[in-house]
Amino acid sequence: MVSEFSITRTVEFAETDMAGIMHFSNFFRWMESCETAFYRSLGLPLISFVPGQVVGWPRVNATCDFRAPLRFNDTVEVRLFVKEIRTRAIVLLFQFRKTTKGKADPEICAQGEITAVCVTHDGKGGMTAAPIPETFRAKVRIAPKAAWTVE
Amino acid sequence: MVSEFSITRTVEFAETDMAGIMHFSNFFRWMESCETAFYRSLGLPLISFVPGQVVGWPRVNATCDFRAPLRFNDTVEVRLFVKEIRTRAIVLLFQFRKTTKGKADPEICAQGEITAVCVTHDGKGGMTAAPIPETFRAKVRIAPKAAWTVE
Amino acid sequence: MVSEFSITRTVEFAETDMAGIMHFSNFFRWMESCETAFYRSLGLPLISFVPGQVVGWPRVNATCDFRAPLRFNDTVEVRLFVKEIRTRAIVLLFQFRKTTKGKADPEICAQGEITAVCVTHDGKGGMTAAPIPETFRAKVRIAPKAAWTVE
Amino acid sequence: MVSEFSITRTVEFAETDMAGIMHFSNFFRWMESCETAFYRSLGLPLISFVPGQVVGWPRVNATCDFRAPLRFNDTVEVRLFVKEIRTRAIVLLFQFRKTTKGKADPEICAQGEITAVCVTHDGKGGMTAAPIPETFRAKVRIAPKAAWTVE
Repeated sequence: MVSEFSITRTVEFAETDMAGIMHFSNFFRWMESCETAFYRSLGLPLISFVPGQVVGWPRVNATCDFRAPLRFNDTVEVRLFVKEIRTRAIVLLFQFRKTTKGKADPEICAQGEITAVCVTHDGKGGMTAAPIPETFRAKVRIAPKAAWTVE
Repeated sequence: MVSEFSITRTVEFAETDMAGIMHFSNFFRWMESCETAFYRSLGLPLISFVPGQVVGWPRVNATCDFRAPLRFNDTVEVRLFVKEIRTRAIVLLFQFRKTTKGKADPEICAQGEITAVCVTHDGKGGMTAAPIPETFRAKVRIAPKAAWTVE
Repeated sequence: MVSEFSITRTVEFAETDMAGIMHFSNFFRWMESCETAFYRSLGLPLISFVPGQVVGWPRVNATCDFRAPLRFNDTVEVRLFVKEIRTRAIVLLFQFRKTTKGKADPEICAQGEITAVCVTHDGKGGMTAAPIPETFRAKVRIAPKAAWTVE
Repeated sequence: MVSEFSITRTVEFAETDMAGIMHFSNFFRWMESCETAFYRSLGLPLISFVPGQVVGWPRVNATCDFRAPLRFNDTVEVRLFVKEIRTRAIVLLFQFRKTTKGKADPEICAQGEITAVCVTHDGKGGMTAAPIPETFRAKVRIAPKAAWTVE
């Protein structure tokens, strides 16, 4: 069972804005990229059109604190922590960690969360929130708070 | 003095994703578009390179609750409310209101907030958070909570 | 029958890049926005999931010449011209026209083209290129070359 | 001296549209990502604010032929070929190559070009097209046409 995951990614030119930094909306896209890679690593799809399977994980909330800007060509670790697993929803916490030469600890440039609801086909052609299936719960567990807490 | 503002906008094809709805990251872009139009309407720039002026409003937090999806060609009102004015920061609240035929009240599909900090040149080539100037405070005031509260 | 159309649009902050200008990929999004509004104005969908209808207009080519940059808050007319109507494909030409104070003629900042193919359901669950239907041809005609030629 | 380069990249959820495929505008972003990585590998910046250096490579044309769609989670090689080096401009050709299980040769899903102009400070606070410097020419050479020609 896994409670953490990370990807490493470099800021692209198209992700910057005229203030010379990564546009804040792209932090949310990076969180989703990390979430996608996390689920892919577990053989769990982010979205599925297979009948009987979980259809997807629509977001009910997304939030991000921005502490330091990211710039073109910055390479950053996006680290995911499973913060909560509710009956029908999951809360994922993400830290954007940038390592600077000469510093031991990476700087947390941003920290955000995505709350997503498990949705399945309702058998009538629509979709409905549903309990997270056991196949999913068998692979994912909650990370201890200490894991993402920085003193 | 103004405490509310709104724009109307239609979901574009490029803003949808394979789930057939507007990608959640675009709600943040729409909030910023509304914020930009708000400041423009007041003659206050979102970003400035004029020496002595406010340089910009970097975001320290952005958050959004998603209640109902938006689809291609949906036309939606994005309504801005000035929620808080702190010494160095402002909190703007946004509602995404979609009017459906045959319904009297618009549906609030999403509600979000952007917290932004006032930044000026520090005189040494860098930037620093600074008190929101009087020229700004003279034009903007806090909206009453009732304005954005839906019973 | 219509051969021209236009929208007016303002460059958003999120559309700029660190060079201080609209990122070149966004010109393609603006072309598509204009194309969408064109089809919407004619009651012709850009994309449809209705059985028996044209499914969509996948692009086979997109190209753009960039002559002058667009900047944050620039307001620009995107003008569409129907350049060619082939059996199964259409070529749309787009001009980005910026009016500057004190100048009589707008400046053409960019000119591009989208070539799109008419696609319908093939009756076997897939999609196939198909002749453009008469309902479409009855509404759209080719613009004379002089319309988009600037001396 | 180098005439080819490539990156490998996976289609993200946010890059898809409601047609279930990668939105065509993102092919242009992927080309630029490959171009950026190419220049970075050579120690040549895509954009620079260092006085006396090349300031950047504004695009004068971008074009792309789309042959087969890319879907969520598809992993694709973007291969860059230096097609032309003119006095003040460079033409880069890009192929999007997808390998399918059981097939020996990768499928070319898209092929595009970016034509970019070398720009330097003009010494008066502005920018001007300038001859590509020798430091650049010493590192980059034209790829033989056979390299990107598929029989």
